[in-house]
Order: sequence, then C-alpha cells, then structure tokens
Amino acid sequence: MLFRHGYIEISTSGKGIYDVTSFVHEFVSNAGADSGHLICLCEHTTASLTMLGGVDRELEHDLFAFFERLAPESDDYFHNNTGGDDMPSHIKAVLTLPSVAAAVLGGDLCMGPNQGFFLLEHRAEGQKRKISISFLGTGMTGEAVPFRA
Amino acid sequence: MLFRHGYIEISTSGKGIYDVTSFVHEFVSNAGADSGHLICLCEHTTASLTMLGGVDRELEHDLFAFFERLAPESDDYFHNNTGGDDMPSHIKAVLTLPSVAAAVLGGDLCMGPNQGFFLLEHRAEGQKRKISISFLGTGMTGEAVPFRA
Amino acid sequence: MLFRHGYIEISTSGKGIYDVTSFVHEFVSNAGADSGHLICLCEHTTASLTMLGGVDRELEHDLFAFFERLAPESDDYFHNNTGGDDMPSHIKAVLTLPSVAAAVLGGDLCMGPNQGFFLLEHRAEGQKRKISISFLGTGMTGEAVPFRA
Repeated sequence: MLFRHGYIEISTSGKGIYDVTSFVHEFVSNAGADSGHLICLCEHTTASLTMLGGVDRELEHDLFAFFERLAPESDDYFHNNTGGDDMPSHIKAVLTLPSVAAAVLGGDLCMGPNQGFFLLEHRAEGQKRKISISFLGTGMTGEAVPFRA
Repeated sequence: MLFRHGYIEISTSGKGIYDVTSFVHEFVSNAGADSGHLICLCEHTTASLTMLGGVDRELEHDLFAFFERLAPESDDYFHNNTGGDDMPSHIKAVLTLPSVAAAVLGGDLCMGPNQGFFLLEHRAEGQKRKISISFLGTGMTGEAVPFRA
Repeated sequence: MLFRHGYIEISTSGKGIYDVTSFVHEFVSNAGADSGHLICLCEHTTASLTMLGGVDRELEHDLFAFFERLAPESDDYFHNNTGGDDMPSHIKAVLTLPSVAAAVLGGDLCMGPNQGFFLLEHRAEGQKRKISISFLGTGMTGEAVPFRA
C-alpha cells in the first residue's frame, strides 16, 4: 500500500477562480500512484476547493456576481473581525466545498474530460492558500518522488 | 487490499432528482467489498451527486423551485455558450456536490436508514451522465466480479 | 493496513453549530491511526457536517440568519410532512455537506490551524444525530482501541 501526502500552495490576488488542476495531476504522477483514492482539502474557511468545467472569464464573472447577490458584503453582519468581506466569505465557503475526493485508476484521475480542480478565493485581498493533497492505494513500479507544489 | 472501480451511467430526462442508491449498493456487493472507503464522483459540472432522504414528488418540486429562485434562468449571464440554463446549472452544481465519500463496514454502506445517493440534473434537456465509483479496503473471501451499472 | 470505524453521537438542542472537532481527534488517536484517509459522514438529511473556523456566537447568528433568508420557513412548501422547517432543512443540508474527507499524517489530521469539524442542525427541535467516522491507512505500533464517542 502506498500513501503519499503533499501540499499545493498558491498566492491569490483576491476574489476569483484559481485553476490548480495541473498541480493535482503533477502530484498523482510524482507520487507514483497507480490505483486508489485521492483526497484534496482546502485548509481555509474563507476559500474553497471545488470542481468546475468550461471555466472562462464570463463564468468567473457570473459566479462571483451570483455570490455577491447571495451574501452581499454591504449587509450587516455581527461577525466582522477582519472586515466586511469576513462573514460573507465564510458563508460562501460553507456553501461550496472544503474537500474533494476522487479515484485514481492506472495512474489517471477518474474525472470528466471537462472537469478540473479549482480554488475559489472569497476574500477581497490576496491570500496565501494551502491545499492538503494525498493518495492512498497501490503504487506503480519504481521509486516515488517527494512532492511539493 | 482490494481496489475496485466502476461507473454508474444514467440517461436523465431533464431537471430533476435521480435515485442511484441501488446502483451504489450493487457496486459494493459486486466488488466483494468488506470494509473500507467508497468514493463516488459525478463526472459533470452541470449535474451533481448528493445524499437525500424522504425523496418524493413534493420534495423534488420544492428543491427545484428553490434552485430556480436562487439562480433564475431568466437572469442575464455572460457565460451562456449552450443556452440560458448553462450558467445557472454551473451555479447549482457548485452549490451542491461533485463527490460523496462514505465508509463500508462488513459489506454494508454506513449511512442513515433514510439516506440515499441521488444525481441532480440541472440542465433542461436530458443528458447522459456518468458517476465514477470506487472502493478501497479489504475484500470478502471469494472472487470479485467486474462491475458496470 | 488498518481500518477503523466508529460513530460520533450527539444530541442537539435545535438549530445551531455544534463543534465535534475533539471527537474527531479522539477517534484518530484511539484508532491508532498513523497515515491515511479519514472520512466523516453525517447520517441525516436535515443536518450537515462541514468545516468551519473562527466560530463564535456572532458567526453562528449570521450563518443561521443567512440560511433563514435563503430558504424561509414561512414560505409555502409541498413537502412538509414533519412541519414547516422540514423542507427548508433539506434545502440547507443539500447546500452544505454530508461528508468530509481529510488526510492523516503521522497521527495528525491535515487541516488548517483554524479549521474544525462542525455539525449544523437545521431542524427547530433538538435531535439525536450520528456521524459515521472511519480511518483507512497505516497503524501506529501498538494495539488499537475500539472507539465510541
């Protein structure tokens, strides 16, 4: 049985969609993973990790315009320790996802051809974000290489 | 260690709730799974996979009426490559789930007596949908049978 | 390979956020878990399990005020077998999470320093709630102890 764990670390520049799909593929490949389970967890509660497809500037615009209508920053919140975008960011993160689980089969991630892994940044200011990523299953023949995005 | 992977494939007839619970049980049984982890992932970004209970026509009606109020198709969206229901479907899928993870214990899925696995179709037109399903853990004695829903 | 499964059982006193983080840590420790995957599943469809951070009375108030605006109990729903909070509770549960998956590394849960595991109770009345929790991976040296929260 093979277990490998690493982190994907990215710096965001404020609200938006950040594609981390290539880091996930790189981790699976560097881990020497053959077949098993992959778990990714966004280690923050004002950002989220999800799967999206067909992402372009229009989709990003529409999604964040929707989020703003859903939980407007102009509303009054009691929890506002770190600014007016604090509580709305928590709300948006609770409604999206901290963790995604997927299968790996013969070294390939089992996901739709148009699917990818995306971090959603909900805070107005840029942040350093960390995604825990791990594989448990069988390994390919050959030495596994430690991974750090 | 036993790893088994398969697909649940269903054809939807447009927006609605589709019960895939029996396919999930069938996969666990056919996989010869004893105890370990099950991961299901909906390989699409305008449909989702979730757990629901007490599903009837009233619940389906109320849930989709809620979705329509939440992200109306009559709103203007910039991302509308494949119709007015394109972006609202992405929004609804982001707010629900691509993947569900559960435990299997002694061949049985650990879930509530009223819980089941359901695909939510968000597109107006019927679609072919694929759910990746996999088990990692220990196997029952006896030969595991390849699975395809 | 080590597989351990248990339940976290709590009694809620109606709508609110219930911290179960210490039970999750206790399970990992009692399971004798070294490195692998942890999966938690809320076995109900009118409560949910999610990760939050910085939880205080203000955040709890704001989150549930948001939920009430999102799916008001005063709205008319066709599915109302068990009261006016029945369907809104299903809606809120579908929008949050039944299951969370995370990695364990060297006996420690891989999650953010401010993250924790929380059950969200959506029903007005107090309920008995059960969370399935399981670990699959490698064990520490020494005997694993059966767990029940």
